[in-house]
Amino acid sequence: MRTLDLLFGRPLATLDERAEQIGPSAGLPIFGLDALSSAAYGPEAALTLLIPLGFMGVRYIVPVSLAIIALLVIVYFSYRQTIEAYPQGGGSYTVATANLGQGPGLLAAAALMIDYILTAAVGISAGVGALVSAVPSLHQHTLALCLGILLLLTVINLRGVRDTGVAFLVPTYLFLGTLLIVIVLGIFHVLVRGGHPIPVVAPPKLPAATTALTWWLMLKVFSSGCTAMTGVEAVSNGVMAFREPTRKNAKTTLTVIIALLIVLLAGIALLCRAYTIGATDPGSAGYDSVLSQLTAAVAGKGIFYYVTIGSILLVLSLSANTAFADFPRLTRAIALHDYLPHVFILRGRRLLYSHGIAALVFFTGALLILFGGVTDRLIPLYAIGAFLAFTLSQAGMVVHWYKEGNAIGRMIVNGVGSFATGLTLLVVLVAKFLDGAWITVILIPALIMIMSMVHRHYERTARETACPDPLRLQGLRPPRVIIPMDRWNRISEKGLRFAMAMSPEVQAVHVDCGDEENSICQVWEDFVMKPVRAAGLPEPELVTIKSPYRFFIQPIVEHVLAEQKKLGDRQIAVLVPELVVRHWYENLLHNQRANLLKLMLLVKGNEKVVVINIPWYLHK
Amino acid sequence: MRTLDLLFGRPLATLDERAEQIGPSAGLPIFGLDALSSAAYGPEAALTLLIPLGFMGVRYIVPVSLAIIALLVIVYFSYRQTIEAYPQGGGSYTVATANLGQGPGLLAAAALMIDYILTAAVGISAGVGALVSAVPSLHQHTLALCLGILLLLTVINLRGVRDTGVAFLVPTYLFLGTLLIVIVLGIFHVLVRGGHPIPVVAPPKLPAATTALTWWLMLKVFSSGCTAMTGVEAVSNGVMAFREPTRKNAKTTLTVIIALLIVLLAGIALLCRAYTIGATDPGSAGYDSVLSQLTAAVAGKGIFYYVTIGSILLVLSLSANTAFADFPRLTRAIALHDYLPHVFILRGRRLLYSHGIAALVFFTGALLILFGGVTDRLIPLYAIGAFLAFTLSQAGMVVHWYKEGNAIGRMIVNGVGSFATGLTLLVVLVAKFLDGAWITVILIPALIMIMSMVHRHYERTARETACPDPLRLQGLRPPRVIIPMDRWNRISEKGLRFAMAMSPEVQAVHVDCGDEENSICQVWEDFVMKPVRAAGLPEPELVTIKSPYRFFIQPIVEHVLAEQKKLGDRQIAVLVPELVVRHWYENLLHNQRANLLKLMLLVKGNEKVVVINIPWYLHK
Repeated sequence: MRTLDLLFGRPLATLDERAEQIGPSAGLPIFGLDALSSAAYGPEAALTLLIPLGFMGVRYIVPVSLAIIALLVIVYFSYRQTIEAYPQGGGSYTVATANLGQGPGLLAAAALMIDYILTAAVGISAGVGALVSAVPSLHQHTLALCLGILLLLTVINLRGVRDTGVAFLVPTYLFLGTLLIVIVLGIFHVLVRGGHPIPVVAPPKLPAATTALTWWLMLKVFSSGCTAMTGVEAVSNGVMAFREPTRKNAKTTLTVIIALLIVLLAGIALLCRAYTIGATDPGSAGYDSVLSQLTAAVAGKGIFYYVTIGSILLVLSLSANTAFADFPRLTRAIALHDYLPHVFILRGRRLLYSHGIAALVFFTGALLILFGGVTDRLIPLYAIGAFLAFTLSQAGMVVHWYKEGNAIGRMIVNGVGSFATGLTLLVVLVAKFLDGAWITVILIPALIMIMSMVHRHYERTARETACPDPLRLQGLRPPRVIIPMDRWNRISEKGLRFAMAMSPEVQAVHVDCGDEENSICQVWEDFVMKPVRAAGLPEPELVTIKSPYRFFIQPIVEHVLAEQKKLGDRQIAVLVPELVVRHWYENLLHNQRANLLKLMLLVKGNEKVVVINIPWYLHK
Repeated sequence: MRTLDLLFGRPLATLDERAEQIGPSAGLPIFGLDALSSAAYGPEAALTLLIPLGFMGVRYIVPVSLAIIALLVIVYFSYRQTIEAYPQGGGSYTVATANLGQGPGLLAAAALMIDYILTAAVGISAGVGALVSAVPSLHQHTLALCLGILLLLTVINLRGVRDTGVAFLVPTYLFLGTLLIVIVLGIFHVLVRGGHPIPVVAPPKLPAATTALTWWLMLKVFSSGCTAMTGVEAVSNGVMAFREPTRKNAKTTLTVIIALLIVLLAGIALLCRAYTIGATDPGSAGYDSVLSQLTAAVAGKGIFYYVTIGSILLVLSLSANTAFADFPRLTRAIALHDYLPHVFILRGRRLLYSHGIAALVFFTGALLILFGGVTDRLIPLYAIGAFLAFTLSQAGMVVHWYKEGNAIGRMIVNGVGSFATGLTLLVVLVAKFLDGAWITVILIPALIMIMSMVHRHYERTARETACPDPLRLQGLRPPRVIIPMDRWNRISEKGLRFAMAMSPEVQAVHVDCGDEENSICQVWEDFVMKPVRAAGLPEPELVTIKSPYRFFIQPIVEHVLAEQKKLGDRQIAVLVPELVVRHWYENLLHNQRANLLKLMLLVKGNEKVVVINIPWYLHK
């Protein structure tokens, strides 16, 4: 227990719950890290697709970024309303389920689960990928580094939400601070120089154009850029984690996150255009990330450059943390509706849904191992989940306001949000289908099917075990007790005493394998029957079963089932003596007949057959 | 079951036992394969050490072989007497235990166990090694081939002894037939040519001498040659497997095996000298085994050559089978004395001690995997076990005849045997100590220690559970029954009914984790107490335990132990309802509280705490 405490903190009582909640300044790193860090790869992803347009391509980043920012503003207002309406946590799953029904709810649930797992995997591997490009000698340890960070995140998160906030505060604010300095300084230079700033370190020359602009290309650029929007829904999912006044704190946090993201996206786009900075081929040797070029152009390659790049690396790899904060809450919400195993509802030592964290770690680890820690290819997949969830959530809000009545204005805000994100979803789906979006299109129905099966199981269980009536007391008779018995010793004596104390009908069963000496049969009359008769108690019966093939378990199970048939509605209790040894390895010295017998009785038995373990402690 | 039958044969009843026993012609392959196949590596091992003596070295193989044959004859007469005296199977372990006491018996047991495992590993890998030298393209699959042969042997042996005899008859007789033809033909040529035969295919030239003969070298040569004697004890261990008249059949088999082995050893030695055939360096490219050179020299490299080499390869790899025939019998004998786990006594479907076979396969497989299928280095180790067992067994026989009285002649035969093999043991130990014999010297005491610990455990268990008195009937009272109860459903109703049927004292325990709705407490009065009072039955009690840390198992276990303390000598029965699902994966949907609770009660509980499983079958 001591080691557990040290690693994960002391257990928290249910009453401590309030104290575990947070305000906006701690909420920003926890719920904003994913959204903000996507500024590091969203614009880059868009610019990479613009490389073939050469010098001209860089110009298009401004309108594309404006389109994304417009979408972001729409989504922002939409989610403000969600927080207002669902202070218990209005994730897309909750909103879609409550307003659109179970089908759309499950669709949102599946999309979000996939999305969180991808967020964790891509976040970690993107961070490690950046680190590895900066320090090439670490390249061979990519997977180990990824798994190491996953482990670190797991330990940090198992300590509980508040501690997590503290651990992520510094990197997040460092990332924001340095990038904002770059943007402000850059824009100052641009203004001073009348729109033509002189870079401190010149960015690499852009290649010549090899293709012309098409609508199809612009759609793909926009789709890639949209990855900058992932993570925006985090706050509305986690409203519950905020301290009172809950809604206000959550909305403030959301506002700050979106405002900062807009500043980052707009700043990066404008400076890229002013300094003529484009993406470089991520596969080639001369690769230099957009933010690295930008920082070098604005501030030179001094200490400030390395601090900035360092904080980007750190934040990227920690962005996975948003998934740790929200995935367990999501699985809990789904499990509360009986669509996922109930273990996701249980809270662990530190008031966290530890099983949700375990599941996230398992799938993320599996993805990382499967792809050897290089999950760049997964980036296109994961805008789909996000936009599917956006669309469903906002469509749900439209219905919500409709039901409330008198809220035309709010209906319009969410309707516009739903329409815009739905359109974007279609664009992303079409533009990225062959790049990997098809995987998500297969996975989501599969997940929905599994969740439906889980639900059917729980429903059936509830139906079968429901007991609307009070305790029935007719026909209460002690069970017939059956004891398998090899020879006479203290263990069989203890069993027999217990059996006779609980029921007047006791049957000892002896399996005769043909090579037995000292069997119970030889002493039964003297050691059992005589004292029983003398005491005038109900007499136990001894049954011998021949077993020519030396099987032991099977004849007993068959005998029990045959007796049960004869007795009809009566219960049969099979008494199984069990040796309990002091050290696990001593189990090797005793055949595991007792456990095997219990297992077989459970598998082949029925409601009427009950197993009683009589433990016998050796060497105590 | 069908698949098992096909692989391992139908189960055999205990009464079928007689029919499973064998005569000399089937006994020869089963018990003689190991002894006879060692003719293929014993002389070669001796000749390899003689390489540095060059041309002169080959001359010394004749006196060395004669010394080994003399030893073999002594051992033969010794073991004849053992078979006579121990028709139930007179392995070294039995004889040493019966006559010298447990200490020497365990020493023999440890030596033999190591020996059998080495026999299996070395036999398989020597066979595969030879095959691989003949077909070099198979070299990369060495380990896979070894494990494949191990699997094959396992399946064959699990079918039972008689079937095994048939499977090994052909290769053994082919091996004997071809080698005897080579020897007879060779000696005919020698006689015709007046001692200077002309080889059909000339053997490779012997290298020039690089060293002179020393006593130390001769001791090492003799020690290596002695590996030819391993496997001789097999018949006396397995007397029981022979059909009536048991002793006569066993002795006939032993006589035939020893006679054939002598012919092989003598023939090989004489022909090597006559044809001037020496060993070649096993590591070098031009390696050609002694038997291969000999066959080629006598009969040329035609079809007969390949048949001969093929049968040698086959018999070498199958020689491991002697271990399969005897190891399980040995472990059974040791287990009958409580020095090994009792599972080794149980007989499986086909009247075999399947656990012994499993243990042999496990250790052999482990050795093969550890050494990558190349166990040539283990050859020096394994004469030690054999000679240690020889010595102890024959020393035991001396004591046996002494106790019988009137058997001076027999005492002398076994005394000579014991002295000769004891001396050889010392020689082998000294000559091979640094080559690896030290491993055996460490392993044997370790094994003896483990066996002693096993024995102590069984002794203590027997002492603790022994019950020399008849059933005591005073103080028979129904136990107090405790049922953990969450909410009211059919499962809790069933449990409560069972509890009330077996005892008037029932206590329902509810763990309150602070976030419970629909708990049992809300319906207890209406659904339980009212009907019970109406029926005038003893009233069950409801106890609520607060659990602020949301632990569930721990509070129940603590409560049970506290109650038990209060009750003193009374039994407490904890009733644990258990969901039985139809498919294993459905277990994922139900938390494993029931199993965990049972485990904790077993671990933390005591003799007075009994667990009752009430199964509830879902979807039946």
